[in-house]
Amino acid sequence: MPDSRFHTRAGPFTLAVLAAAAAAELHASADPDAVIEDVAPLDAAGRHDLSFLDNPRYLAAFEASGAGACVVSPRHADRAPPGMALLLSRRPYMSYARIAQSFYPSAQPEPGIAPTAVIAETARVGEGCRIDASAVIEDGAEIGRRCVIGANAVIGHAVQIGDDVTIGPCAVLSHCVVGDRVYIYRGVCIGQEGFGFAPDAAGHVAVPQLGRVVIGDDAQIGANSTIDRGSGGDTVVGPDCWIDNLVQIAHNVELGRGVVMVAQAGIAGSSTIGDQVMIGGQTGIIGHLSVGAGAQIAGQSGVTRDVPSGEKWGGRPAVPIGQWHRQTVSLSRLARRRARDHE
Amino acid sequence: MPDSRFHTRAGPFTLAVLAAAAAAELHASADPDAVIEDVAPLDAAGRHDLSFLDNPRYLAAFEASGAGACVVSPRHADRAPPGMALLLSRRPYMSYARIAQSFYPSAQPEPGIAPTAVIAETARVGEGCRIDASAVIEDGAEIGRRCVIGANAVIGHAVQIGDDVTIGPCAVLSHCVVGDRVYIYRGVCIGQEGFGFAPDAAGHVAVPQLGRVVIGDDAQIGANSTIDRGSGGDTVVGPDCWIDNLVQIAHNVELGRGVVMVAQAGIAGSSTIGDQVMIGGQTGIIGHLSVGAGAQIAGQSGVTRDVPSGEKWGGRPAVPIGQWHRQTVSLSRLARRRARDHE
Amino acid sequence: MPDSRFHTRAGPFTLAVLAAAAAAELHASADPDAVIEDVAPLDAAGRHDLSFLDNPRYLAAFEASGAGACVVSPRHADRAPPGMALLLSRRPYMSYARIAQSFYPSAQPEPGIAPTAVIAETARVGEGCRIDASAVIEDGAEIGRRCVIGANAVIGHAVQIGDDVTIGPCAVLSHCVVGDRVYIYRGVCIGQEGFGFAPDAAGHVAVPQLGRVVIGDDAQIGANSTIDRGSGGDTVVGPDCWIDNLVQIAHNVELGRGVVMVAQAGIAGSSTIGDQVMIGGQTGIIGHLSVGAGAQIAGQSGVTRDVPSGEKWGGRPAVPIGQWHRQTVSLSRLARRRARDHE
Repeated sequence: MPDSRFHTRAGPFTLAVLAAAAAAELHASADPDAVIEDVAPLDAAGRHDLSFLDNPRYLAAFEASGAGACVVSPRHADRAPPGMALLLSRRPYMSYARIAQSFYPSAQPEPGIAPTAVIAETARVGEGCRIDASAVIEDGAEIGRRCVIGANAVIGHAVQIGDDVTIGPCAVLSHCVVGDRVYIYRGVCIGQEGFGFAPDAAGHVAVPQLGRVVIGDDAQIGANSTIDRGSGGDTVVGPDCWIDNLVQIAHNVELGRGVVMVAQAGIAGSSTIGDQVMIGGQTGIIGHLSVGAGAQIAGQSGVTRDVPSGEKWGGRPAVPIGQWHRQTVSLSRLARRRARDHE
Repeated sequence: MPDSRFHTRAGPFTLAVLAAAAAAELHASADPDAVIEDVAPLDAAGRHDLSFLDNPRYLAAFEASGAGACVVSPRHADRAPPGMALLLSRRPYMSYARIAQSFYPSAQPEPGIAPTAVIAETARVGEGCRIDASAVIEDGAEIGRRCVIGANAVIGHAVQIGDDVTIGPCAVLSHCVVGDRVYIYRGVCIGQEGFGFAPDAAGHVAVPQLGRVVIGDDAQIGANSTIDRGSGGDTVVGPDCWIDNLVQIAHNVELGRGVVMVAQAGIAGSSTIGDQVMIGGQTGIIGHLSVGAGAQIAGQSGVTRDVPSGEKWGGRPAVPIGQWHRQTVSLSRLARRRARDHE
Repeated sequence: MPDSRFHTRAGPFTLAVLAAAAAAELHASADPDAVIEDVAPLDAAGRHDLSFLDNPRYLAAFEASGAGACVVSPRHADRAPPGMALLLSRRPYMSYARIAQSFYPSAQPEPGIAPTAVIAETARVGEGCRIDASAVIEDGAEIGRRCVIGANAVIGHAVQIGDDVTIGPCAVLSHCVVGDRVYIYRGVCIGQEGFGFAPDAAGHVAVPQLGRVVIGDDAQIGANSTIDRGSGGDTVVGPDCWIDNLVQIAHNVELGRGVVMVAQAGIAGSSTIGDQVMIGGQTGIIGHLSVGAGAQIAGQSGVTRDVPSGEKWGGRPAVPIGQWHRQTVSLSRLARRRARDHE
């Protein structure tokens, strides 16, 4: 059960209500009026809790679970323990997300400006915002409605922020335009100069970085990630992108819609990433290339040339995933043969 | 000699006192009443300084050192220059640590609350704490005794912190419970939502992250590292874990006791790491797997399956270390043969 | 055209003035009195804009550009579209940097100390400094002239900072000495304890970190990077080093002059990096080794032994670059042969 000091629960709800929220089908044997009080992981759930099975790795935990109800794919329904009410969904994780949002809805911020917040006279803050302690909003910045600006965050000169945006504590934004419903996590740095200089042994010469960062609606940028502004033209994070922690996005990179980047990945300057591309953790993508829409790049890859739309690539340098697996197997056999020959 | 503007020295001490502190044996030729004034590296130490030899790479520096005294393994004692007093220890680095702690003890914080600190009325701060300028402690947070909360750090709603804890400047904590004697470095982010969403081309759907981060006694978390809270259940960092800078720990990861993670390593969601595991720098561990107690993972590895207790693994994908070395050698030979064939 | 909310333009300038600033030769067909109003990327520039061609990958954009003037290498001059005025330079990117600096000069800071800044009585701040909101300058710190200390930055006890230095918002400095004209980006952590402990299953024992960080003139440290102080002796970042975002530099590392480290690279303790070394993104260098002056290390490499001066290395473990390419090709062929044999 979530710690009530940190998480405030709504409900309870009947199975019928939850099935509707989840766009799931209630199994014939389930009682639509049964009451569920909370969500919980399979191994911790009790008879008034709802859980979910998505990753088949957890089938055994599903079979042993004491959850009163569970969201599950129809193909795993017959593995359910007796007495568990089933909500059938072809997308159990999505259905669970909707149910968990019902129990733990995002709260509207309590509007208010902390006495220690520092807001420039020429800055504008929309109605319904919460500005936390020692947050700094510099001259000419414009904050939309119902935003939260976390403690000790810094919103630089002339930054534009849409409605319903959350900026985490100690995040620093400058030279950027941010859409609606964006979530910038704590410690994120957005809009600083890109890494642009003309190398010279007598002293590298800085190239002025004259662009901005533009962040689309509904994007999320994870803790301590860094996004540099364009050198000329903009760095763009498309709508609905999900960026994890400690990610680096260099100047003039353009991410399409819905791009996912897992923690510690990085993209060098001027590369273009298509819609719905998935980039694994610790992957690096060099500069000036293109990854087509829907491509998937495995974790820890090194992408050094264009990736066609829809393909799965992996390895260093990255190649189509089948080829990478063959490389891995080939190397493994070669090494085993070598070991045998030396016995 | 350490810069006295930054480091305050105690002492001097006699060799007898230092040998006792170090659990080392004073060599027969050494004068137990000789006075040592400071510690210093081998190449900078003078006759009133104590140094140490641990890594045999520095044997030449040891032989040429002007240190008045040195902690050294018995097996290197005969390489000492004439006139150097020896403290013999089978664990020279440990012995040196104890001696350096004698000369440079951790100071108790001067208690006090900076006038610009912002502490919610419902927060509790134990006796003997030092709360630095513009630190923010939100409602319901509880801080133990003799803690230091650095300048501009943010302790979120209801966070629980034990005794003798140091939180660095600009660190941000929420949704977490922290043990005693923990050291959270500057810029660290703990307790933010994990990277959990149901992917959807029409807009990824956030999965509420309903857990916490629990950090055991004596743990250290390095600068700008990030630890996400559990999605349901907790993310756990066991007692005495040492985490270096820029490390990523995802939701529901569980680290046992004494785990070491070197800089820029990362662990994906729900993986379990046993006691005393050592994880090299820039290594990645994928989600939902298990690394057994005492295992050692080389730097820059990519762990994609369970690692048995006590084994050493390396490579991408990671394999037992002997196998990885054979792979490296095999590939190197193959490439050389290819070069020769093309001459 | 750069967004005037974020970037303030000087000029206009004649081609003659710009050619002089750029140390470029005006092509015979160009009118030295023609007026240029701004700089812009090739694909966005109009007839009053100046652009540049450096990377041949953008030759097609150059041929199609509407820029009124362009800095270009003599060898690409004949590819220019009709009517474009050419500034010929053997170093087009350097020449462009100088011109862009003419249009967008760095502003001197407006001196002033924000009312919410917290400056210890024993700290010294030179003339002409700008100290932003809620910045904290602790006892005994010394800041030179014309520095900018960003909002919520923390300058620790006794830190020494030269003239014309910029410290970004939320950066945290302690135990360090910083030269002139240094740029520390937002979120950077400098001077914290290095990752030094004697491992022990009963509880790792901290080794006091008694050194400092010394940063030379004109160095740049990118957002959210971390530089640990020396354990005994100093961690050194030489003059004119350019360090990108999210880089880790461990205790006692020494970087020479002009070293370049791209994002997410890391160097383990006590390694020495020569002048003008270039280190690619996500590369790791293990501890206690030496990379000679002028060496270049490819991105995502793993350097595990000394690299001689002037050589190019790559791979994991890193080897001379030709060898690495042969390894990549050999592995690729081996995997293809394997695929064929299984058809």
